[in-house]
Amino acid sequence: MLCEIITIGDEILIGQIIDTNSAWMAQQLNMIGIKVKQISSVSDDREHILKALKEASDRVQIVLITGGLGPTKDDITKKTLCEYFGCEMVFNESQFEMVEKIFSSFGREVTPINRKQAEVPEICTCLVNQNGTAPGMWFDVDGIVYVSMPGVPYEMMGMMSNQVLPMLKDRFKTPVIRHRTFRTQGVGESLLASWIETWEDALPAHMKLAYLPAAGQVRLRISATGEQAEKLDEEIEQQAVLLYELIGKHIFAESEVELEQVIHQWMIDHNKTLSTAESCTGGTIASMLTKLPGASKYFEGSTVCYSYEIKERLLGVKTETLKNFGAVSEETVKEMVEGALKLHQTDYTVAVSGIAGPDGGTEEKPVGTVWIAIGGPDGIKAKKFRFSTNRERNITMASLSALNMLRKYLLKQED
Amino acid sequence: MLCEIITIGDEILIGQIIDTNSAWMAQQLNMIGIKVKQISSVSDDREHILKALKEASDRVQIVLITGGLGPTKDDITKKTLCEYFGCEMVFNESQFEMVEKIFSSFGREVTPINRKQAEVPEICTCLVNQNGTAPGMWFDVDGIVYVSMPGVPYEMMGMMSNQVLPMLKDRFKTPVIRHRTFRTQGVGESLLASWIETWEDALPAHMKLAYLPAAGQVRLRISATGEQAEKLDEEIEQQAVLLYELIGKHIFAESEVELEQVIHQWMIDHNKTLSTAESCTGGTIASMLTKLPGASKYFEGSTVCYSYEIKERLLGVKTETLKNFGAVSEETVKEMVEGALKLHQTDYTVAVSGIAGPDGGTEEKPVGTVWIAIGGPDGIKAKKFRFSTNRERNITMASLSALNMLRKYLLKQED
Repeated sequence: MLCEIITIGDEILIGQIIDTNSAWMAQQLNMIGIKVKQISSVSDDREHILKALKEASDRVQIVLITGGLGPTKDDITKKTLCEYFGCEMVFNESQFEMVEKIFSSFGREVTPINRKQAEVPEICTCLVNQNGTAPGMWFDVDGIVYVSMPGVPYEMMGMMSNQVLPMLKDRFKTPVIRHRTFRTQGVGESLLASWIETWEDALPAHMKLAYLPAAGQVRLRISATGEQAEKLDEEIEQQAVLLYELIGKHIFAESEVELEQVIHQWMIDHNKTLSTAESCTGGTIASMLTKLPGASKYFEGSTVCYSYEIKERLLGVKTETLKNFGAVSEETVKEMVEGALKLHQTDYTVAVSGIAGPDGGTEEKPVGTVWIAIGGPDGIKAKKFRFSTNRERNITMASLSALNMLRKYLLKQED
Repeated sequence: MLCEIITIGDEILIGQIIDTNSAWMAQQLNMIGIKVKQISSVSDDREHILKALKEASDRVQIVLITGGLGPTKDDITKKTLCEYFGCEMVFNESQFEMVEKIFSSFGREVTPINRKQAEVPEICTCLVNQNGTAPGMWFDVDGIVYVSMPGVPYEMMGMMSNQVLPMLKDRFKTPVIRHRTFRTQGVGESLLASWIETWEDALPAHMKLAYLPAAGQVRLRISATGEQAEKLDEEIEQQAVLLYELIGKHIFAESEVELEQVIHQWMIDHNKTLSTAESCTGGTIASMLTKLPGASKYFEGSTVCYSYEIKERLLGVKTETLKNFGAVSEETVKEMVEGALKLHQTDYTVAVSGIAGPDGGTEEKPVGTVWIAIGGPDGIKAKKFRFSTNRERNITMASLSALNMLRKYLLKQED
């Protein structure tokens, strides 16, 4: 089953916004077995839209259109769809009542513009917009489905998840596909692949494994295609057990759960407190944790100790330790942990000291060298890492590695 | 002059990567007066690429193609372009020598695969790839220019900036367009527009103003079109003087300079030191500053004081202050500044305390209420802000506002 995504609007064509909608839509469509054949971004222009619709209808069975709705766009998409299908615009009473209801819940009155938004091509089925006032439109003409949705990402996403995807599944009797995603940190794609090669090769033909790498992390996704969701889930579960036996300690979560969320939840569940002592990460770990609502339940604070002086004065790192071993050393990072535990009076602490670059590297300690230590009831554990030559990447990798080391410490896992 | 961008590769169509290249290319093309008519993302498929090229050639005079080069892609773009133009693939000696030179500078030997990369369609002009081994290709056929570039962003960007844009300017005799961008923080788009309305209306016909808003910031860009760069620059300068008179104190920088870079540079130029005391921003300000290379020259550290206890014990905020006024108050944030200046022993400090949300708001202090204070040789200045209901947005807005307040303090500007 093939699909084309058409985005309408000059914002993308002048480079004012990056088209993130299409990637998200493509991912969602892939999950139900629909392949995106082409993505076309066209201007707010009647003739251009007509041409794009015609071209798409020669290529695919599903055409998903975003953007070009609403008063500021002069509702160009809606008008052009009317022209394309040769039908009339009609006032949709129930759509209007819905908008009225949304407005009255905000204590606002409906304007003539909103009334206009309830006008739709007569041959379409209206889709509810739970996050806005412009309705979606579903056309099923000559075996091809066309869907028009708003361009605002969260309006489009709500409409896709709640209506368009289930309707497409139903309309095209797509096969049942089930997915399960495992997230790992700190192991490269090729090393991971070598550890699970035999298992991967033995997967049955209707199950596929995908590697989705990102900075310092790899997502592994098992997809199984068949007819019964329950049976597929069972089969995936059996494979997941085998996968956990092979690389379980590197899997920090499933699906879209981030590493900081794993720490966040553990701290809340165990009623413990946490702090950080950050040199080269400069507050990034604290910032990642405190972005999560409810972080104040366990996160006490952080000492960002960029200078030698702050390391000594606040964290109690000894002058001679810094002198003899340097700021980026096992000795210093361990003293940072001791100091941070005392200073912040938390159950656990994470300390990081490294050379983010681009300057400051030496032959013995090149840019990208980072020492990380964890402290808590089980003593202090320290480890040396060697990342890249890129400053931003080093900060990201050090922050993620520190969170993963803490996770292993909390779960009493060996490295 | 119209252009179409064609991206080739399944990564975009399966949603694995977001197409950021096209937005950047569109911006660059706009700057030299070339309009993007359509962006098409197509698969690594011969027939599909041929169709896309044909469709594009009916619409535009410039076709920019990215992706589908290199051994893992089976060089599909190169082969298909040969077929499209009906020409032969030939070995390009000077291109091969270039690749050999790059490799020998890394101490690596050229492989047969690299040799293959020096094979190009005979009618093309090779473009140098300063950041990789796959060359770019420029075709000028029947009045239409086709350019094929690698899909790796920094390879494409280098090639566009150094070769493609200048060559397009020259080939199509595009008008001279000069731009100047002014960055503001903390004032909404409509308020800003009302302050400069009279000035904007009086701009000569060949000068345009664009508003480019982002979280808490607005970029104002003046573009002038004409024949002589120098004359246009002069005219823009005259308008810039008038603009600075109207809203100068809200302009923190020109072009792509970020707020944290302004602070960074000031501290280095004036040989001063800085620290932060962060509650609701949770280390974000420290993290923004320390992402910049050389931050260790002036940034001493930060106390992220998420709990009452750390505010009291480390920053010396009085128990009764917290009790009487709360953590989010002028009194507390001022004591945080005093404490941070003493603790970190820096020339300047920034303190932030607020309710990021989604919980913790009250009628008197709703979510989004943030107090920011700056301390230094000119005493303590504090200000209350009211942002949004969204936690992440509140953290971003508070961090940017704190940096802007510090900027104004350093420049001794009134609010």
